Amino acid sequence: MPSVYAFDHPHELDFDELQQLLGQKGAHLSHMVSTLDLPVPPGFVIGIDAGRLVRSEGGSEEHEREIRQHLDQLSERVGKELGSAERPLLLSVRAGGVHPTPGALRSVLDIGLNEDTVAGLAASTGDERFALDSYRRLVQMYASVVLGVPQELFEHRWDGAKLLAGITDDAEVPVEVLRLVIERFHAVVESSTGAPFPQDPEEQLRGAVAAACRSWDAPAARNYRRREGLDDDGGLAVSVQQMVFGNRNERSGTGLAFSRHPSTGERVVHGEFLVRAQGLDVGGGRQTMTIAEMADHFPVAGERLASSLTTLEHAFGDMMSVQFTIENDELWLLQGTPGDRSGRAAVTIAVAVTADDDLGLDRKDALLLVTGDHLDQLLHPQLEGGRTVLATGLGASPGAAVGQVYFNADAAVDAYDEGHDVILVKDETSPEDVHGMAIAEGILTSRGGLASHAAVVARGWGKPAVCGAGMIDIASDHFTVGSVVVAEGDTISLDGAAGHVFLGAIDLSEGDVPPEMDIVLGWADDVRAGRLAVRANADNAEDAKKAREFGAEGVGLCRTEHQFLGERLPVVQRMILAGSDDEEVAALEMLAEVQRSDFIELLEAMDGLPVTVRLLDPPLHEFLPDITELAVEEAKGRLDDAGRHLLSAARAHHEENPMLGTRGVRLGILKEGLFRMQARALAEAALARRSAGGHPVVEIMVPLIINRAELDLVRGWIEEELTAAIGEERDGLVITIGTMIETPRAALCADTIAPGADFFSFGTNDLTQMTLGFSRDDVESRIMGVYLDRGLLGANPFQTIDRQGVGALVISAAKAAREAVPGIKMGVCGEHGGDPRSIELFAEAGLDYVSCSPYRVPIARLAAAQAIVRADR
Amino acid sequence: MPSVYAFDHPHELDFDELQQLLGQKGAHLSHMVSTLDLPVPPGFVIGIDAGRLVRSEGGSEEHEREIRQHLDQLSERVGKELGSAERPLLLSVRAGGVHPTPGALRSVLDIGLNEDTVAGLAASTGDERFALDSYRRLVQMYASVVLGVPQELFEHRWDGAKLLAGITDDAEVPVEVLRLVIERFHAVVESSTGAPFPQDPEEQLRGAVAAACRSWDAPAARNYRRREGLDDDGGLAVSVQQMVFGNRNERSGTGLAFSRHPSTGERVVHGEFLVRAQGLDVGGGRQTMTIAEMADHFPVAGERLASSLTTLEHAFGDMMSVQFTIENDELWLLQGTPGDRSGRAAVTIAVAVTADDDLGLDRKDALLLVTGDHLDQLLHPQLEGGRTVLATGLGASPGAAVGQVYFNADAAVDAYDEGHDVILVKDETSPEDVHGMAIAEGILTSRGGLASHAAVVARGWGKPAVCGAGMIDIASDHFTVGSVVVAEGDTISLDGAAGHVFLGAIDLSEGDVPPEMDIVLGWADDVRAGRLAVRANADNAEDAKKAREFGAEGVGLCRTEHQFLGERLPVVQRMILAGSDDEEVAALEMLAEVQRSDFIELLEAMDGLPVTVRLLDPPLHEFLPDITELAVEEAKGRLDDAGRHLLSAARAHHEENPMLGTRGVRLGILKEGLFRMQARALAEAALARRSAGGHPVVEIMVPLIINRAELDLVRGWIEEELTAAIGEERDGLVITIGTMIETPRAALCADTIAPGADFFSFGTNDLTQMTLGFSRDDVESRIMGVYLDRGLLGANPFQTIDRQGVGALVISAAKAAREAVPGIKMGVCGEHGGDPRSIELFAEAGLDYVSCSPYRVPIARLAAAQAIVRADR
Repeated sequence: MPSVYAFDHPHELDFDELQQLLGQKGAHLSHMVSTLDLPVPPGFVIGIDAGRLVRSEGGSEEHEREIRQHLDQLSERVGKELGSAERPLLLSVRAGGVHPTPGALRSVLDIGLNEDTVAGLAASTGDERFALDSYRRLVQMYASVVLGVPQELFEHRWDGAKLLAGITDDAEVPVEVLRLVIERFHAVVESSTGAPFPQDPEEQLRGAVAAACRSWDAPAARNYRRREGLDDDGGLAVSVQQMVFGNRNERSGTGLAFSRHPSTGERVVHGEFLVRAQGLDVGGGRQTMTIAEMADHFPVAGERLASSLTTLEHAFGDMMSVQFTIENDELWLLQGTPGDRSGRAAVTIAVAVTADDDLGLDRKDALLLVTGDHLDQLLHPQLEGGRTVLATGLGASPGAAVGQVYFNADAAVDAYDEGHDVILVKDETSPEDVHGMAIAEGILTSRGGLASHAAVVARGWGKPAVCGAGMIDIASDHFTVGSVVVAEGDTISLDGAAGHVFLGAIDLSEGDVPPEMDIVLGWADDVRAGRLAVRANADNAEDAKKAREFGAEGVGLCRTEHQFLGERLPVVQRMILAGSDDEEVAALEMLAEVQRSDFIELLEAMDGLPVTVRLLDPPLHEFLPDITELAVEEAKGRLDDAGRHLLSAARAHHEENPMLGTRGVRLGILKEGLFRMQARALAEAALARRSAGGHPVVEIMVPLIINRAELDLVRGWIEEELTAAIGEERDGLVITIGTMIETPRAALCADTIAPGADFFSFGTNDLTQMTLGFSRDDVESRIMGVYLDRGLLGANPFQTIDRQGVGALVISAAKAAREAVPGIKMGVCGEHGGDPRSIELFAEAGLDYVSCSPYRVPIARLAAAQAIVRADR
Repeated sequence: MPSVYAFDHPHELDFDELQQLLGQKGAHLSHMVSTLDLPVPPGFVIGIDAGRLVRSEGGSEEHEREIRQHLDQLSERVGKELGSAERPLLLSVRAGGVHPTPGALRSVLDIGLNEDTVAGLAASTGDERFALDSYRRLVQMYASVVLGVPQELFEHRWDGAKLLAGITDDAEVPVEVLRLVIERFHAVVESSTGAPFPQDPEEQLRGAVAAACRSWDAPAARNYRRREGLDDDGGLAVSVQQMVFGNRNERSGTGLAFSRHPSTGERVVHGEFLVRAQGLDVGGGRQTMTIAEMADHFPVAGERLASSLTTLEHAFGDMMSVQFTIENDELWLLQGTPGDRSGRAAVTIAVAVTADDDLGLDRKDALLLVTGDHLDQLLHPQLEGGRTVLATGLGASPGAAVGQVYFNADAAVDAYDEGHDVILVKDETSPEDVHGMAIAEGILTSRGGLASHAAVVARGWGKPAVCGAGMIDIASDHFTVGSVVVAEGDTISLDGAAGHVFLGAIDLSEGDVPPEMDIVLGWADDVRAGRLAVRANADNAEDAKKAREFGAEGVGLCRTEHQFLGERLPVVQRMILAGSDDEEVAALEMLAEVQRSDFIELLEAMDGLPVTVRLLDPPLHEFLPDITELAVEEAKGRLDDAGRHLLSAARAHHEENPMLGTRGVRLGILKEGLFRMQARALAEAALARRSAGGHPVVEIMVPLIINRAELDLVRGWIEEELTAAIGEERDGLVITIGTMIETPRAALCADTIAPGADFFSFGTNDLTQMTLGFSRDDVESRIMGVYLDRGLLGANPFQTIDRQGVGALVISAAKAAREAVPGIKMGVCGEHGGDPRSIELFAEAGLDYVSCSPYRVPIARLAAAQAIVRADR
């Protein structure tokens, strides 16, 4: 098996397979050369497998032999030779994975130069300044990216040289100064690494290739993969190309160009260009030209660039970007890949490409050009411009917020009433802070993970939040980050996607949504229709209305416990503390009334669409105060009889591991009246809606079962209550009874449970907790970061479903359930329902719907359609 | 499909299949009639399926028709008819399941008698007293077992009648008094049930059959199934037989007999007999005869009985018991089944039967005649005689204990030092009570389940314990149960198998173990050799020695955390609280020293056998004091700086769900030095043992992994430490590195994990907790009882492995691991390793060993052999 490939090597792979072999960049280069006949400097690609071998074991003899062979072919073709003083072959080395891999090594240029060949280059080009400038670049770049010498050691000396020469433009540094610079650079290398700069061009190439392969493990690359949920098993391919020189002379330069405008999607060639420059010089502070200006100066190359971009669009069916160099008026494309774009551009381009007959793209193709991140940008305001980050936490709820900090909910509300924008800052939030959270622009906490109260509430409300920012130290009227003190009333900005906190106000770009977004989502809905529905998790009518506006086709999860908080908490406590059956019945009756009216509003908001209501799930102690706080009050003699009663109840209901304790159906079985009450309230709400001319569709869901017997028992109670409230004839009322599949056992026994349920809803949050033995509350803040950093997990399994473990359980359970009960309705509720990669797995499992928070609904609609398009291909 | 079968119906089933069809009793009767030609009154059996139908739906027309047909055949055969006044057919009805079902209906006799037929019986037998006595028995028995009328309403009147007649012997009550008694019994039935005693014999039969079927759900029957881990899906078969009358006259009687002595196993016919009696009269207080005495009085019947028992033994290959009746000198066998026997008898019989050529039994057959309960009896002293139970808790550790109650460990030790036997009574125990537990005869707690500290420690030490006895209310110097007060120093007795507490001292029968036990266990070892080894869970040398005496072939689980308690706790806390790396290293160094010496002793005790050492598993907060207690102290101003330091550490390490939190390998990854220290200590201990001429076999086990990457990382550290301590050449030292499989994910990914491990040990305790989402600490006391009572679980999944969920995971993981790495060593540690039914599953999964607490080792040896014998058949 060869592991190194010429750009024009013959093959019978489709383009996806080619990318698996050569990485994204390598595959594009290969296609551009062998099929599109575009002007690409000749070269070859060290494939991903070989790259992995180099990374792990430093390579092999066989591999070295192959590279030498390809070098020989390249030499023959271009009539130059690596290390030859007369006709020196110079090379560039670039790394790239199957997916874009920001943070990995971008390039090492000018490989092959040394004290001998630099003279040869000067002689053969007749331009000593150019040859020395190239050599200076090689030493600096090689030393920093291959040898790890700090970049600034070179930059300081380079700046000094320019000062010495009395000039500012890199391109004007005179030859004698360049010679001195190179001498100083050699000295830096030797003193930093203990060895001279390698003069052997083959050693330079080996070093650059090895560094390129190892850059897979660079922290920035790892972090990028973390964020994107990509695993660490991939690796990099490495392209080796003959150099072309944008720093050759005034008729040369280097640039970046897009086939369409990356911010707006407009059909113009957009980009920037720098004369007499190489590689990363663009973006280095020197004044650049626009592509239009470049085309004026270099009309032939400009036209060639425009036509090349059109060719690329036609070939790859997407907006494309290229890195290019002009050498002596001649255009060379160094790489060409799909271009990064804004959310607005993404939807605009998606709609535009379907109208372009030359591209031959249909709506399904176009759907694949938009990502969830693109939609996120459109749905939430973004922070403009770059600022220094004050602190970083978890990006708990996307969007940007600017406001004055307040440290308790009441003060926040007062400030809001006075007309201020407010950001609520707390160690952690609790139900007591909800009024402050409701009016805040954003929320910042120092403790808690993505499942903390603050995070869950914020996501539900589409409100930006940064959680668990452990480096901020909160006092009663200020917080500190290191030496920075932020007092009450000071303004900060939050980026709830990146988890960043900034000092001061940063401009918000309001997400005014282009009409193309709805067009794209409409196409997505057409693709999904009858295959994979999208519902929302909504606990009340307000959330349900919002979800419906975002296109939700029902409520997949109404958590009734959220109706038990706030002013109703004392009634719930009365039920728990009840000394007699009568007291318990009375408290339940009061709860039934409020539940009934909650349900009526919810069913009205979702009229005609299914609403899945989960019976009470959390353990009772969640409705009781904290034991330690009460015990301390007691020790201080400040507890009255009622308080002592509460303390003793809190102790009695305390559990070591409440997540695995008396909750869900277990609680229902101990408190039969509670589940019966909820079923009755739902039945009565449905009746009331029918009387009002509505079309309620109710799905009652039993949480946390481990077997069929629990479901049968509780189902019997529910049926009794329904019959008591409605009578034997349901007469148009649609009420079904199903169960969560959220314990591993329920998933393992799905075949026996299915015949007892009208539907299944996979509770992938709990299923993940139990399958991995990860308590989200505890593990996300303590362990997840370490695990991701060390590569022990490819992605946070609470964000993207763990395919091998939890995903495998979902797939096998769905299969078993369908075998037992063909056509049984199955969905998923929980965070994974809004995650594109997880949705792909749910589509594969054949689920009927996903359910997610209202603000994720558009993203889920898109992702579901994409999963279907991909699966059908 | 027929559902009712004549005893001699033709069939081609083997005996097991016959028992599935007819229940144990029915199948034995059928075999006794059709094959052995023993004297059994004619009749038929309503099969288990039909019994289930009657229980759930009251029967069917088809079923009624079948019964009528069998009645007709029976009538024809015996020349009598149900309800005929001239030739009345009288019937008995007996229920029995596939397994013995104590607590279900035993029998209703004399069915068919009414005001008409009683006269006919009197006329046909010429004995009015006998006829009336039978009728009186029918009314009483039928009313109590079928109609639910309290038995004592009849007994009071019967006793009154005898007082009235001036006699004490039931058999002498004169006719005129019997008539009056029957009249009064009728009145009791009518006033208690609102309806007269049914005169229709067919209605009597239907009622008795229905009651028999329904008695499957009687509380005593359910409780028995609970205890035995049998599920509730089974059901009862019902035998219907022509009556024979032990109450006929002086040449009649009824009795029970065993083919061997049920206490000693001696080869003598043993039993008791009562003249002129029926059914349950034996055991009712009247003076009985021995079988030898009976044989003197009834020589023909006596000889027939002895020969029948021999026939039965030869047919069924076991010691047998029969219920029999003699009517007019003629012997009738009413039922014949394998006889209950003591532990001593069980092993004695098992050895004896192999020597009896007529039986044709080999050692494997004999092994199946002994149960774990039999061995338990032999290994632990038992309470003699029956007493009233004062309180009941969980049978947490078997054996019996008698002693004076003490409520704290220090007082207990003082009393012990003064020479008293002590029982330690606490709400729950903690490591601080260990010195008191160590000297106690037994332990009683009011809180906590089978996994509580008290239970685990007691089982480890083979010390009787009753835990979670919620009805006892413990004060500082006494406890109360209802109105009974038990003060410090009062004597109580515990039955740690049944979970019973008795007031006062009950005699202990010391288990002097017969030599046959070792013979039987030797056979078991022969069967197991090379197939399924038995190891012990032992945390120290003392436990390991004990385990080895009991036949353990290694240590399957050494929990190193148990070495971190007691006097070492402050060092552990110092490590946790360490403010600098140096402090942490210093604390770890101190721990390394004590661990090393612990390991040396342990390896010495198990020299030459494998010792599996689990790296530290529990979360750190377990080594810190309780937050609430410290916070209360702080509120009272009683906390010094060190205390405040501890409080803040306890808060920092607090977890919501520690079971799913920062423990096991996760803790190791955060505290790399801890795992490295343990590996180093083990390596040094192994070296020390080798130097001393020993043969240490060390297996290092990584707990709680979810994937291969964690194992690879930690394995790397361990290998480094081993190499640092030992060098590259291990030179005879056997040290392997493996992992627990205790998260569902690890089980699901066993194929990818296996290549990174030298061995797997299934941690079925945690695997059960996570697969079912059951926190043992919380669920066992709150929910398990309710779930078992309501039939939501067939057995406590922490005692007997949950076959459908956890068991299925173990089986599939073992299969996947073997496919990935043929021959990988796999075992199980945790409570299930000592449970016979679970061991059967582990044998099926092909595991190499089970590991259990030292005192369960003999039982596991037997159970493992039995599983293999059964699987091979």
